[in-house]
Amino acid sequence: MKDTATIRKMIEELKGLKTQNMYLNDFFHTWKESDDEISATFAVAEILRAMREQNISSKVFDSGLGISIFRDNSTRTRFSFASACNMLGLEVQDLDEKTSQIAHGETVRETANMVSFMADVIGIRDDMYIGKGHAYMKEVAHAVQEGYDDGVLEQRPTLVNLQCDIDHPTQSMADLLHVINHFGGVENLKGKKVAMTWAYSPSYGKPLSVPQGVIGLFTRFGMDVVLAHPEGYNVMPEIEEVAAENARKSGGSYTRVNSMAEAFKDADIVYPKSWAPFAVMEERTQLVGDGKFDELKDLEKRCLLNNAKFKDWECTEELMATTNGGKALYMHCLPADISGVSCKEGEVAASVFERYRVPLYKEASYKPYIIAAMIFLAKFRNPADKLSELVEAAQKRII
Amino acid sequence: MKDTATIRKMIEELKGLKTQNMYLNDFFHTWKESDDEISATFAVAEILRAMREQNISSKVFDSGLGISIFRDNSTRTRFSFASACNMLGLEVQDLDEKTSQIAHGETVRETANMVSFMADVIGIRDDMYIGKGHAYMKEVAHAVQEGYDDGVLEQRPTLVNLQCDIDHPTQSMADLLHVINHFGGVENLKGKKVAMTWAYSPSYGKPLSVPQGVIGLFTRFGMDVVLAHPEGYNVMPEIEEVAAENARKSGGSYTRVNSMAEAFKDADIVYPKSWAPFAVMEERTQLVGDGKFDELKDLEKRCLLNNAKFKDWECTEELMATTNGGKALYMHCLPADISGVSCKEGEVAASVFERYRVPLYKEASYKPYIIAAMIFLAKFRNPADKLSELVEAAQKRII
Amino acid sequence: MKDTATIRKMIEELKGLKTQNMYLNDFFHTWKESDDEISATFAVAEILRAMREQNISSKVFDSGLGISIFRDNSTRTRFSFASACNMLGLEVQDLDEKTSQIAHGETVRETANMVSFMADVIGIRDDMYIGKGHAYMKEVAHAVQEGYDDGVLEQRPTLVNLQCDIDHPTQSMADLLHVINHFGGVENLKGKKVAMTWAYSPSYGKPLSVPQGVIGLFTRFGMDVVLAHPEGYNVMPEIEEVAAENARKSGGSYTRVNSMAEAFKDADIVYPKSWAPFAVMEERTQLVGDGKFDELKDLEKRCLLNNAKFKDWECTEELMATTNGGKALYMHCLPADISGVSCKEGEVAASVFERYRVPLYKEASYKPYIIAAMIFLAKFRNPADKLSELVEAAQKRII
Repeated sequence: MKDTATIRKMIEELKGLKTQNMYLNDFFHTWKESDDEISATFAVAEILRAMREQNISSKVFDSGLGISIFRDNSTRTRFSFASACNMLGLEVQDLDEKTSQIAHGETVRETANMVSFMADVIGIRDDMYIGKGHAYMKEVAHAVQEGYDDGVLEQRPTLVNLQCDIDHPTQSMADLLHVINHFGGVENLKGKKVAMTWAYSPSYGKPLSVPQGVIGLFTRFGMDVVLAHPEGYNVMPEIEEVAAENARKSGGSYTRVNSMAEAFKDADIVYPKSWAPFAVMEERTQLVGDGKFDELKDLEKRCLLNNAKFKDWECTEELMATTNGGKALYMHCLPADISGVSCKEGEVAASVFERYRVPLYKEASYKPYIIAAMIFLAKFRNPADKLSELVEAAQKRII
Repeated sequence: MKDTATIRKMIEELKGLKTQNMYLNDFFHTWKESDDEISATFAVAEILRAMREQNISSKVFDSGLGISIFRDNSTRTRFSFASACNMLGLEVQDLDEKTSQIAHGETVRETANMVSFMADVIGIRDDMYIGKGHAYMKEVAHAVQEGYDDGVLEQRPTLVNLQCDIDHPTQSMADLLHVINHFGGVENLKGKKVAMTWAYSPSYGKPLSVPQGVIGLFTRFGMDVVLAHPEGYNVMPEIEEVAAENARKSGGSYTRVNSMAEAFKDADIVYPKSWAPFAVMEERTQLVGDGKFDELKDLEKRCLLNNAKFKDWECTEELMATTNGGKALYMHCLPADISGVSCKEGEVAASVFERYRVPLYKEASYKPYIIAAMIFLAKFRNPADKLSELVEAAQKRII
Repeated sequence: MKDTATIRKMIEELKGLKTQNMYLNDFFHTWKESDDEISATFAVAEILRAMREQNISSKVFDSGLGISIFRDNSTRTRFSFASACNMLGLEVQDLDEKTSQIAHGETVRETANMVSFMADVIGIRDDMYIGKGHAYMKEVAHAVQEGYDDGVLEQRPTLVNLQCDIDHPTQSMADLLHVINHFGGVENLKGKKVAMTWAYSPSYGKPLSVPQGVIGLFTRFGMDVVLAHPEGYNVMPEIEEVAAENARKSGGSYTRVNSMAEAFKDADIVYPKSWAPFAVMEERTQLVGDGKFDELKDLEKRCLLNNAKFKDWECTEELMATTNGGKALYMHCLPADISGVSCKEGEVAASVFERYRVPLYKEASYKPYIIAAMIFLAKFRNPADKLSELVEAAQKRII
């Protein structure tokens, strides 16, 4: 546990980072953020966590709402967002689209304003359809900016991407903060091998944003990132370009292979996880858009049949043994498809999952702090000063 | 933006208004409130808004619940109520009747008490059935008064009518505050012509409380209020009497015509909006009560057929051009049925709606402040003193 | 209403009670708590209520979440828990299992951690299946303890049993606090006769936890507790043993009879309430577990037929007249099945229920304070000191 002196030192270090562009801005994709901005997000997350451990209040809002818009069911993300808002003093209000009948277009503009009169942040998860999620978030951001400029809204709510079709920044940032802590500092990541690999799951159509988020972020830290998947399970080519460019700049590498074994060989970190091929996701979006639900069922059947060819893409003890010292850090965004536990054949062997249960939960535990940090940095021009104020005021979270 | 000196002046003016009867009371219909009480509600709403713009906290509750009871789906009202509660320090708890199986009668009395142990306010929307909504609210108010008198409840929650079958006071008050600001002060309203007119919509059975709320309130300010609708689309006669009496007292007028064109001619304000005829709403209530669902379908069919005769009741550019200087303020409670956008043929032409989008959103933006003002005035015997306390304490909303 | 001097005296008395074992612990069954712990819960509940009456804030959390898990619909318990959390400064987040797909086993462990990153308390209601509810709660408690020990959670959320298959401690404690106040002090309970009796209801399968909770708690105060039910409607034998042992220690008695009349004779307190036979509940759990839904329907039919033999088990005016002075305190956990009001033939005559309406609502009004007291005692090693701090700080709940 970090004491107050350590927290003060962390705040001091934060001062060296340029975060002005985050102020009154949104957080969509990690690759749109500068290195300083990424570092600052980690720093603020760690400071907020240390403050909470020391029972120091991080309440910066006396009142205000955090609006959550989830376009499909979600427990984990819902609670992470609620936790982040609560920690800062915002009350969560869920916008349930099933009851409120929001659609795209003009209606987005109207609803975004109607729910934002007291909103300081809007968190959106919309990951189901390629080409839609990010577009929707941009629409909402544009709408509330207009509302603010026109004097309709007293404040400009900041948007946090809680998962879109392209990136899953709160996940990948929590993942990486876990990695940083696991390896004892960001300076120790250079040269580490990361295997982001596809794995078999009995369900089809899992979003691409997790692997894309990981390759788009992990490549910035000088690591050797390998993406492995069966033929046809490609991710979005634009994001592979981002990853390659990142690797070039950071002195790491980005490669793609078609074998789980090759990816695992000597890896320091493994992230085996199912996803749908980009091309399938595109077809699916088209079919849903056209209301062709019979064809949709056919697509699902075809996909599951194809998936079934790759049941051997499972994170087994044998594969784990081939990693660096047999001790790679196993990662997952949870929930995992565990063979013999949550399904007959899945992404990971039960014994592997069980061995990494505590690290997996720790990985997840960073997410509320990452979200809170994103909000914090969007709300304060001088985040270090505000954190100092909080630490010196030392208001107790529990009296 | 109003500075602190201006806010102090506004508070000073509030002191001249008699609000004692609002203290520990409910807000059901605007015409049950005195002129001072109406003015005070506007004043407190404006002060709360100015405080928020100045980042001054308006949290008067350290804890406490705001209960919302919505008897049909609602996004806008739900968020307005949540915003108002949050601004004052209350946490919203929704009472979902689908899961909690509330009915009328003894059960209302019981449930009203069971949910109110920590409730400082109860907001209810119950607008669907003529003769039911207001009656239900009175039942709840009576139940919590008894509970308070009997020592069951530590505090007497105040009721806010978020829309009943008779009036929609949070809407009409927000509408009027928008009008006051648009015309630069309440003193400029005298002699302005208001066209509250029926408009065609492809749906049937929209509540009467919006037109009734408008004619029942706007007639108090010396304006010439015209209600226009096709033959048979009458509103409740009692409310027309209220409007006529208001007009007599205020030196304005209240008239009814059967032509949209006549109402729009030289109007300063137009409010074209669909509603169901009072007689139809009564029949509908009876049929639902009797469980005659086949007859209900017939009624709907008949109504839609009848509505269809009046598709030319649309707020077009041509009609707008006939208003005073061609520049009448277009109003709507939202969402509107926009021709060619949200429906084929609707209440308003797309170009008219688009031109007034920003004013429409501003109109809506007053609602949370109006609701907060209603709560505030019901909770403090000396609202001006309390507001002064808040302004002088100058607790920041965002640190 | 108690003044501040009285509150100080109450806090002084609390200091004499040993509550160390409640600190960082859970509240599952009243019989697992010592006499001091039970007394302390009442004391803290009464102090919190008196503080609220005096407009003194009891907010001990600056931020933090209270998680509620309700495994079937609930209005009263939901609002009681929300009220308790709000009073202490926690924001409620409901975990809706229908949308979040929680199951038992490994998934419980994972979900319990995933929702608890900022959770200070978890309230669970799981009363439907014998052998399941309490087991589920223990699983959750174990999971979050592990999470805390492993450094996944910053704090160990305390569990409050909001009703399980075995006990309903927030109900029985609220019931008893009502009895204490009704009879003017716990010292006046000795020798009072309590009739906890089965009553007819047109529904089957009501949980056993209410009668079990009552006999398991009321027997600790030197009262003569009689459990009455038709043959076959037994409660869990272990709880009867608890009751008998309690009675032995407290100098009261515990007896079982098969006649409502016998139980009511000269009773000071009557609690007529329907429940399902233990054996039926066991069979039902088995059938649901095995997915035998046809047999389940048969079971229901058989039960209702059997219930119907005992329609004369109704709390009538005639029976009330046979109680001590004809003035026994009538109790119910609500909602009651009222003959001729909520059903044709039910647990209680309408005139009896009506006469006791105010006491019944008061009985219910203790529940939020009891829940808040349970949380308070689990969170502070020296509850009296913390309460003193609050009373001396005298922060106003409403400014």
